[in-house]
Amino acid sequence: MIGPQASLRQSATRLVEDLQERICALVCDVEHSVAGRTNGRPAEFAVDAWENDGASETVAGAGSTRVLSAGAAFEKGGVNTSVVTGTRLPPSVVSQRPELAGDGFFATGVSVVLHPWNPYAPTAHCNFRYFEAQAPDGRCSARWFGGGADLTPFYPDIADVRHFHATLRDACDRHDPQFYPAFKAWCDRYFYLKHRRETRGVGGIFYDYLDADGFGESGQRTNFEAPRSPEELLSFMADAGGAFAEAYLPLVERHGADAFGERERAFQLLRRGRYVEFNLVYDRGTHFGLQSGGRTESILMSLPPLVRWAYDEQPEAGSAEGELAAFLRPRDWLSEVPAAS
Amino acid sequence: MIGPQASLRQSATRLVEDLQERICALVCDVEHSVAGRTNGRPAEFAVDAWENDGASETVAGAGSTRVLSAGAAFEKGGVNTSVVTGTRLPPSVVSQRPELAGDGFFATGVSVVLHPWNPYAPTAHCNFRYFEAQAPDGRCSARWFGGGADLTPFYPDIADVRHFHATLRDACDRHDPQFYPAFKAWCDRYFYLKHRRETRGVGGIFYDYLDADGFGESGQRTNFEAPRSPEELLSFMADAGGAFAEAYLPLVERHGADAFGERERAFQLLRRGRYVEFNLVYDRGTHFGLQSGGRTESILMSLPPLVRWAYDEQPEAGSAEGELAAFLRPRDWLSEVPAAS
Repeated sequence: MIGPQASLRQSATRLVEDLQERICALVCDVEHSVAGRTNGRPAEFAVDAWENDGASETVAGAGSTRVLSAGAAFEKGGVNTSVVTGTRLPPSVVSQRPELAGDGFFATGVSVVLHPWNPYAPTAHCNFRYFEAQAPDGRCSARWFGGGADLTPFYPDIADVRHFHATLRDACDRHDPQFYPAFKAWCDRYFYLKHRRETRGVGGIFYDYLDADGFGESGQRTNFEAPRSPEELLSFMADAGGAFAEAYLPLVERHGADAFGERERAFQLLRRGRYVEFNLVYDRGTHFGLQSGGRTESILMSLPPLVRWAYDEQPEAGSAEGELAAFLRPRDWLSEVPAAS
Repeated sequence: MIGPQASLRQSATRLVEDLQERICALVCDVEHSVAGRTNGRPAEFAVDAWENDGASETVAGAGSTRVLSAGAAFEKGGVNTSVVTGTRLPPSVVSQRPELAGDGFFATGVSVVLHPWNPYAPTAHCNFRYFEAQAPDGRCSARWFGGGADLTPFYPDIADVRHFHATLRDACDRHDPQFYPAFKAWCDRYFYLKHRRETRGVGGIFYDYLDADGFGESGQRTNFEAPRSPEELLSFMADAGGAFAEAYLPLVERHGADAFGERERAFQLLRRGRYVEFNLVYDRGTHFGLQSGGRTESILMSLPPLVRWAYDEQPEAGSAEGELAAFLRPRDWLSEVPAAS
C-alpha cells in the first residue's frame, strides 16, 4: 500500500535503486558470458556516489553513477540514478503544465546507456523516472511518471528488432493495451534527428506525464476509463524497466562475439556521431540536466567512448551499411515484414 | 566605391570567396611543409559546390564546401562559403533587432575549422559574415558584419597564444583601437561551456552587429564617433580574415612535426569532445544553420574527425595535461605573464 506523498517518493526512489541494481547485475552477466567466448576480460562497474555536484543553487541532488569501461562486451556503459529537488520547475515542464508555474519539484530516475564494442550489437538506452510538483505550501500539486527505451542498431537485423519491440510490447500489454501503440509512436517522433531526416534508431517506447488519469502531453492526452492507483503506475515502471534488460541484453549476448573488421568498426564510429548529435542537439533530458546545473559527468556518460565524423561519407549502395538508412524508417515491427527500401 | 545595396552584397560575396581561396592556399602550403618534414603526404581540398541542399522551403542558398581529410598536418579541415537568402529573419536576430521582425534576409560568409593531427598544434576556427535584412518592399532595412576567430590548444604554449592574439590585435588596431579589447572580451564570453565551467580555448576575437554606427548587441552597443563607410567595414572583414591565417597557420607549421605518443593523442581526443559539446550545445551559428534547414554536412564539417568521451577522466595533477584547465582561464595574453594556476 502506498500512503501519503512521502511514501510514494520513497517507493519510487527504492524502485529506481532496485532497477539500477538488477540492470547492473544483468550487464555483468553478459560481460562474463561474452568474455568467456572471446577470451576477453569482463569489466566491473565503478560506482560513484555523488551529492550536490551540480552548478545550480536552486537544485539539490544526489545520485549514484555506475560506469563500466573497456569491458568484454561493452566499450562503455552507464547505469545512473539520481534524486533531485528544485525550487522551480524547469521551463520544459511548465510549458506542458502551465498551472504549475512557480512550483518546486522532486524527481527520481534511472538512466541507462550501453555502447557495445561489437558493431553487430546495437546500442541501447532507457530512462524511467518519477516526477512530483510541489506547491509553495509544501503540498504535492501533481505527480507523474515518464520513461522510455530505444534501440540503435548499426547493422540491420530484423530478428533483433522484433525481440526488442515484442518484449517491450508484452510488458506494456500487461498494464494497458493502449500503451505500446501510443508509446511506440511517441518514441518514433521523439528520437528523430530533424537535421538528418533520420530516426536515431529503430525506436522502442517513450512516454511522459503518465498519471492516475492518463498520459501524454497537453493537447494530446489519452485518458483512462477509470483512474489508476499509484501502485499500478509504479508497477508499470518496474515492469518496463525489467523489460528493457530482457529486450536488449540478449542481443548483446547474441552478437558480442560476432566477427568484424575495420570496416564495421569505422561505420560504427561514424553512426555513433548521430547518437552524439541527437543527445546534444535534441535530447530534453540532456538539456534539462545541463541547463539546470546538473552533474555534467553523469549526464554526459551517455556519449559514446569513441566517435568519428567525416564529411558527407555515404555508404556504398547495396552494402550492408547502405541498407541501414532504409531500415531505420519507422514501421510496425511486429506485424510487417519490412521492405528492403 | 560601393554604391547601392546590390553592389555591397556583391563585394561581400566576392570577399568571402577571396578569403576562402587565400586560406585554402595557405593551408595547402602548411600541408606541404609539414609533409616534407614528416615524410607525410600533403592532402588537397575536395571541393563540393552545392545549391539549395537544405531542408527548408523558406531559405535558399548556395555554397562551396572545401574539405581536406587525412593530410600531413591536418586530420580534417573545412573552409566553407555560403550565400543564403530567407523570407524570415531567424529568431536569434529578431531578439536583437525587434524592429526587423518579419523582414527577410541575405547572408554571406566564410567558415573555417581546422583540426591538426599533432596534439601540440591547436585547433582553430574563424567565421566572417555579412548580413542584410530586407523589408517586405525589397528595401534593405539593416546591414551589418559579424565574425570571429578563436584558438583551442590542447597543450599550453604561451608563445603560440601571444602570436595568435597579437596578430588579431594588430589587424583590429589598424581599424579601431576599441576593437581588440571589446572583441577579445566578447570572444571569452561567447566560447564558454557553462556546463563545464570552461572556456573552449584561449579565445581570440568575436563581434557582431558591426555597422556604420558601431557594434554590439542591443543594450550593449558601442557607438563610433563618426559613421564608418561600407568600404571601411568590408576592409576590416578582409583584414581580420587575412589575420586569422597569419595568426594560426604558423602554429601548425611550428608544431606539425613535434614528437607525440599515445598519451598526447588520447588527451587530444578527449579535449575534442569539449569542442563537439560547444558546437552542438551552444554555438549559435550551428543552431541557426541546423534549425533553419541549412546544409547539414557543411554545417557539421566543424566536428572533429575522431573524438573520445570517458567518464570523469581527469589529468594527473602536475602533468602537462593537468595544466590546461588553469591555462584556459581568460586573461590579457598580451601584457600579463600568466600564473601557473
